Amino acid sequence: MKYFIEFSYKGTKYHGWQYQPNANSVQETLSKALSLMLKAPMELVGAGRTDAGVHAKQMYAHFETNALDSIPELIQKLNSYLPKDIAIHAIYRVPEEAHARFDAIKRTYEYHIHQQKDAFDCSNSWHYHYPLDLKIMNEACQILFEYHDFECFSKTHTDVNTFNCKIYEAHWREQHNRFVFTISADRFLRNMVRAIVGTMIDVGRKKITLEQFRTIIENKDRNQAGFSVPAHGLYLTQVIYPYL
Amino acid sequence: MKYFIEFSYKGTKYHGWQYQPNANSVQETLSKALSLMLKAPMELVGAGRTDAGVHAKQMYAHFETNALDSIPELIQKLNSYLPKDIAIHAIYRVPEEAHARFDAIKRTYEYHIHQQKDAFDCSNSWHYHYPLDLKIMNEACQILFEYHDFECFSKTHTDVNTFNCKIYEAHWREQHNRFVFTISADRFLRNMVRAIVGTMIDVGRKKITLEQFRTIIENKDRNQAGFSVPAHGLYLTQVIYPYL
Repeated sequence: MKYFIEFSYKGTKYHGWQYQPNANSVQETLSKALSLMLKAPMELVGAGRTDAGVHAKQMYAHFETNALDSIPELIQKLNSYLPKDIAIHAIYRVPEEAHARFDAIKRTYEYHIHQQKDAFDCSNSWHYHYPLDLKIMNEACQILFEYHDFECFSKTHTDVNTFNCKIYEAHWREQHNRFVFTISADRFLRNMVRAIVGTMIDVGRKKITLEQFRTIIENKDRNQAGFSVPAHGLYLTQVIYPYL
Repeated sequence: MKYFIEFSYKGTKYHGWQYQPNANSVQETLSKALSLMLKAPMELVGAGRTDAGVHAKQMYAHFETNALDSIPELIQKLNSYLPKDIAIHAIYRVPEEAHARFDAIKRTYEYHIHQQKDAFDCSNSWHYHYPLDLKIMNEACQILFEYHDFECFSKTHTDVNTFNCKIYEAHWREQHNRFVFTISADRFLRNMVRAIVGTMIDVGRKKITLEQFRTIIENKDRNQAGFSVPAHGLYLTQVIYPYL
């Protein structure tokens, strides 16, 4: 039978979601715990990758096993066994053909920036002290909605067939001493959110105009876009499936 | 001339405030940074110790140096140089006889508990999942005000002359998914807040009655009080001086 597991993690100590031979990954940590509890090797397929150091407030993976008797008890055991920076929220029975990666119809990310140094934000938000004009950065958000091809914000040499993404939501807001960028889309290219934020920072610092921001998208050239902001400000916050 | 430096730190990576020969301390990290900036060895005297792993949202230390020209610039340089988990908030000129430890008239601590596992609270709050009755724990707080001698909550074999403390404030409240205990006093004994919280948890779980809580204080015996809760939920949040 097929199940979805819903969880969150603080990415600081992990080299991302995806299994890697010589590094600590969330996938490996979680599948080891699940295999131990269910007394059989469990393979997990995640909703997507996250890069090293990126956090997830809501993430899903699927696995197959015999019928589970007591899901609340399994969740409690997993939470006791797993390290403090991974928390299991729920386990759902899903249709046999369900797929955590292919069936996700919308993903949401947030990027957090704090402007005053804060000892407690050190691994949860990016400290960037230059003044930023959030109003003009929100105008740049509006430009995103006019395009579908975001090759300019993609890591080069990836093996995707298309750079098309449908943006559902994109805005900046102030929230307790932080600037928070929220973006939702049907899919994201590798490094896309961090490259968008880096380029919007160039807009917010008036290094480039809104017209130049538009031209960068149209030229489809990663070298014209801004730098990639650090991983520790980035959160995967929501993944939506038609059947959950 | 004498100056007070006001700062905060996330204690996770430090063996407390106090300098220790073979461990990373906030005192050493900060005095090295200050010595470098002021081009002379700077000695820092802190408002008090904090144990390994304990955080400080507001902490002070004093140092002596020649007159400082540009304090805002010094603060900015220190913040750029120091690790991300230590933030400098201010530097004040104080009277020559001022002393960061002896002159503090009130100190406040908070202890944070979360009941549902939370990946992002892992180093900022203690995960304790047994149900707690906050109402009865607040009644235990009222009992604290009736006493001055808190030897029962002190580390044994300390070199203090008296176990007397004047409690100004003590209460539990719910704040965003956390139970937060706040306690203010003129002084605190070593390990005192963590022992009070551990004993109040015994009250909140109905393992001991309010009468027994009172008897523990009256018997002045650390072995009768509850366990010492972990350091990573504890914050020094405020230190008050008559002249600041």
